[in-house]
Amino acid sequence: MIGSETISDYLERLASREPTPGGGAAGALHAAQGAALVSMVAVYTTGKKYAAHEDRAKQIASRADELISASLQTADDDEAAFTAVVEAYKLPSGSEAERSTRSDTIQRAVLGATEPSLALIRLATEIIELSEELVDFGNPNVVSDIAAAAEAARAAIATALITLQINISALKDAGEQDGLRAEADRAERAIDRAQTVSQRVREKVAA
Amino acid sequence: MIGSETISDYLERLASREPTPGGGAAGALHAAQGAALVSMVAVYTTGKKYAAHEDRAKQIASRADELISASLQTADDDEAAFTAVVEAYKLPSGSEAERSTRSDTIQRAVLGATEPSLALIRLATEIIELSEELVDFGNPNVVSDIAAAAEAARAAIATALITLQINISALKDAGEQDGLRAEADRAERAIDRAQTVSQRVREKVAA
Repeated sequence: MIGSETISDYLERLASREPTPGGGAAGALHAAQGAALVSMVAVYTTGKKYAAHEDRAKQIASRADELISASLQTADDDEAAFTAVVEAYKLPSGSEAERSTRSDTIQRAVLGATEPSLALIRLATEIIELSEELVDFGNPNVVSDIAAAAEAARAAIATALITLQINISALKDAGEQDGLRAEADRAERAIDRAQTVSQRVREKVAA
Repeated sequence: MIGSETISDYLERLASREPTPGGGAAGALHAAQGAALVSMVAVYTTGKKYAAHEDRAKQIASRADELISASLQTADDDEAAFTAVVEAYKLPSGSEAERSTRSDTIQRAVLGATEPSLALIRLATEIIELSEELVDFGNPNVVSDIAAAAEAARAAIATALITLQINISALKDAGEQDGLRAEADRAERAIDRAQTVSQRVREKVAA
């Protein structure tokens, strides 16, 4: 589990000549940090001054804590899925039957590898939605952390999108490709929403 | 030092009701991950196939390793600088002399707090420049990690910019403000360059 590693050890493995951890883990850690920052802003939005929003702030904090673990989980899932793709490419391709088995296994593995990317995109989109709520009523003393949360979630989506695009290109089934392209389009819109959160925070700060 | 903490412990502190770690630490970790991904791509760009670029790839890997430590250092510097600002605001303001001392101390602390943000912006800009080079000659098997590096560095800059903007607003010296605004404008251009790196990678992947 990536969570039990020290930050220095993790960064050393990230920098090393090994295929994982790579972009998948980095994206997961971006999202986990975004979720943690949402949680922090929510726990600062309590007390008399925020009485009207206290229940919602507590819900957001609790959901954000779940999103931290779920984000880290996608790093491990991504590593396993990526390994399955690499193994599939190593299958023998001498005979016609072997080539057919190999091709089917690759296609299944690539389709499986889209899942952690899609999961991360969905989690990060939810982090952006929570940050949108907090711009409206969150404690203004930590407003910059709302923008930091949205930027972290944005980076998670942008990183996952590259991997997703590679896997879409490797698929042969046009129906699967179309479905995944629709998910990629939704992810682009979530990136735009993160940009808006960040922009709104900057306007508040400049005001 | 943030580097010696486990990722789970760090995320727990990030999510807690404490002013630090916050956006400053998150930005630092984004940049550190960007530098680590640049290093990984560079160490994959060696051997006969990359003979023409091997020397430069080695330089990039070695510089990126330095940027990992330098990025993490800004997290600790940011925490110290932020604490100095908080302490300055706590100074007594009963008499005219006290108010004057307090105001001067706040201004010095706020100016000091812009330094880790500026340092992070410069480091992350360098990471983007290294990723621009790697798009041209880096190992295509890890091209997605170049985009992941640029996106991580972009998030670091966007996060540091919010804190910088808050500190610019808190300063009274118009000359200092103008100088810092010029740095903020340069940071916006680095964000655009990261976007271009990511876009170029996506075009390569789709081709």
